[in-house]
Amino acid sequence: MKKSRIALVAIAAALLLAAPAFAYDGVVEKKTFAMPSYTTVGGKTIKDVKVGWESYGTLNAAKDNVILVAHFFSGNSHAAGKYKPEDTAPGYWDSIIGAGKPIDTDRFFVVSSDTLVNLNAKSPTTVTTGPASIDPATGKPYGMSFPVITMRDFVNVQKALVESLGVTKLYAVAGASMGAMQTIEWAAGYPDMVERAVAVIGDAEASGELIGWLNVWAAPILLDPNWNGGDYYGKAEPNAGLAQSLKIVTLQAQGVEWANKNFGRKWAAADKNPLDAYANKFAIEDVLDKAGAGRVATSDANAFLYLVKANQLYLQDAPSLDAVVKKIKAKLLLLPAQGDLVFPPDGVRRTRDALKADGKAVEYAEIEGPNGHLNGVIHVAKQGEAIKAFLAK
Amino acid sequence: MKKSRIALVAIAAALLLAAPAFAYDGVVEKKTFAMPSYTTVGGKTIKDVKVGWESYGTLNAAKDNVILVAHFFSGNSHAAGKYKPEDTAPGYWDSIIGAGKPIDTDRFFVVSSDTLVNLNAKSPTTVTTGPASIDPATGKPYGMSFPVITMRDFVNVQKALVESLGVTKLYAVAGASMGAMQTIEWAAGYPDMVERAVAVIGDAEASGELIGWLNVWAAPILLDPNWNGGDYYGKAEPNAGLAQSLKIVTLQAQGVEWANKNFGRKWAAADKNPLDAYANKFAIEDVLDKAGAGRVATSDANAFLYLVKANQLYLQDAPSLDAVVKKIKAKLLLLPAQGDLVFPPDGVRRTRDALKADGKAVEYAEIEGPNGHLNGVIHVAKQGEAIKAFLAK
Repeated sequence: MKKSRIALVAIAAALLLAAPAFAYDGVVEKKTFAMPSYTTVGGKTIKDVKVGWESYGTLNAAKDNVILVAHFFSGNSHAAGKYKPEDTAPGYWDSIIGAGKPIDTDRFFVVSSDTLVNLNAKSPTTVTTGPASIDPATGKPYGMSFPVITMRDFVNVQKALVESLGVTKLYAVAGASMGAMQTIEWAAGYPDMVERAVAVIGDAEASGELIGWLNVWAAPILLDPNWNGGDYYGKAEPNAGLAQSLKIVTLQAQGVEWANKNFGRKWAAADKNPLDAYANKFAIEDVLDKAGAGRVATSDANAFLYLVKANQLYLQDAPSLDAVVKKIKAKLLLLPAQGDLVFPPDGVRRTRDALKADGKAVEYAEIEGPNGHLNGVIHVAKQGEAIKAFLAK
Repeated sequence: MKKSRIALVAIAAALLLAAPAFAYDGVVEKKTFAMPSYTTVGGKTIKDVKVGWESYGTLNAAKDNVILVAHFFSGNSHAAGKYKPEDTAPGYWDSIIGAGKPIDTDRFFVVSSDTLVNLNAKSPTTVTTGPASIDPATGKPYGMSFPVITMRDFVNVQKALVESLGVTKLYAVAGASMGAMQTIEWAAGYPDMVERAVAVIGDAEASGELIGWLNVWAAPILLDPNWNGGDYYGKAEPNAGLAQSLKIVTLQAQGVEWANKNFGRKWAAADKNPLDAYANKFAIEDVLDKAGAGRVATSDANAFLYLVKANQLYLQDAPSLDAVVKKIKAKLLLLPAQGDLVFPPDGVRRTRDALKADGKAVEYAEIEGPNGHLNGVIHVAKQGEAIKAFLAK
């Protein structure tokens, strides 16, 4: 890996992942959960499904201390701790998962799984089944012949995983962004199995606005000629399009304060005035380009497209917010972030009000910070006390 | 023009342009202003510059009743009235420009010009000089060899235009979005020439956030292989990329309420569940696709890129908001729109406060409506009284 590539990856990691001061101190091991066959919500059967998972803490004898953590769009199951002491950063929610932390691993058994169709399909620490996987029926990668999947499909595979451990009830489900969507999908889909739901920077349905933006996110991949209808494995890949798609996600996830305070109108290079040549960039353009490009090596473009679709379809079997709300039995804690452009707090307050109106036990607080949507990853510990108190009830 | 194409254009027009109930009742004529040579802010000389312009009302003998109107990113000089009675829609600000209207053509002589580097380079009612124009030095289109231009260059060409009419002072400059940017560029660049500035849905500098989004707007064009470094004239054009770029602009300009109330989670076709096939779309995706595609026929991709750069560079000779503010002498009326994702009212309030702190005469009001940024075009008449009162001072 060249030095410049390392710099890019480091910038991308800094932008998209959390880097808390203290790490979960157990040794984290990536395990694999396998299903010989899984039938999607859309009625298609996928053979040989495999997803990676991690756990922090110990499953008790009663098997009633399980907290399932679901990850965000561009994440994987590495929520806490380090695989090796020399890892540069721990898992993304390490600030709230660990011994004595809000999600206390002295008390809880925390399970975190890679999604079916994980974006990081090429990462050595992600195990997933998706469009880049070999279709046993053809011996070739699925590409766009992979079935359309939904948030419920992610949940269903997680359900099979925890059931394989003998777990029949979840003390809580928690997650950020797409993880919050899985959390609410869990609570709505399996209401008798979920006792508590902690939905951070997420909402209870995909709004029209979000569906539109997800379409915009996907557009660069579809424009890249190397995408080739999704048939690019073993050939030149649509890296330019994928980098642009990841760039849009970064800008929308970081939000206004991040962009204005850190970069404003600064140039990318002091001796290259953007007035002098079309190619001369502003600092924020350069950072966004690097953030997008830095994640291409471990990401799969088709997986990005399938995640877009899964997010747009959310919550696929409940046609309205009221329909979602009626399904839920769990106590809920909603934690949107100030300045969030992906799931604006306005929308989450609407969900809170609908839950309250339906008599559900719902608590609400906002996460402060300069990182918009990503406050829910980077600064989630600011609501650590609220999470701790909620889990104590 | 096929029927489906007409439908697309109609949708795009409905999305991006205003359709007020009453039209400016004078006959509107598109005129051309020519300059043998123009030297840009960046120091490059362009020969044979031509821009289209329109006027509404009558220039008085003292030549002191001129209101210059500058247009938005995707617009042209057609701000009011109709060219022919059978035109489907009048100019975009017809609701506030006309006899007895807030910008009263019984009193004022309103001048509106196409920008240098206008997006609608292929529209029969736009006259502009830009990358699609023939470079007299080579006999071929400029493409990306056209000089980088700035908001000040737009203003400088407008200044030459009004000076050609013997006008040395402007009673007011007004504009929406990029038109507001030109308005403030006018007030900051030629403070002794501008008496009043009406900046609708625009701000006094490009924020880091806006610079980032403008980069995202441009990305699809750069990804389209037909773009070919800007050398596509007379060949296959980058229409797919341009359509995607225009789509992003549409979504960001319309905003949250428009997307959620009009489309929400509706499917594009009742018999095509997005769960059943990757190609099955949601209604908002379909509308955005059509809005983008519907404007391709009259738009030039390179012009889009140059406009992005001009917007990013704004306000190029004032490195900070305070520096912009100090240059201005005009009275100002700032009219941001509620729900605006392009120029959020938060930012415009910051500008108002900076102007106030510097002792400038500034008024501020917000335009309500369900169309986010585009409230400043579609619903500008809601602040018609404020505009009328401001112009009376």
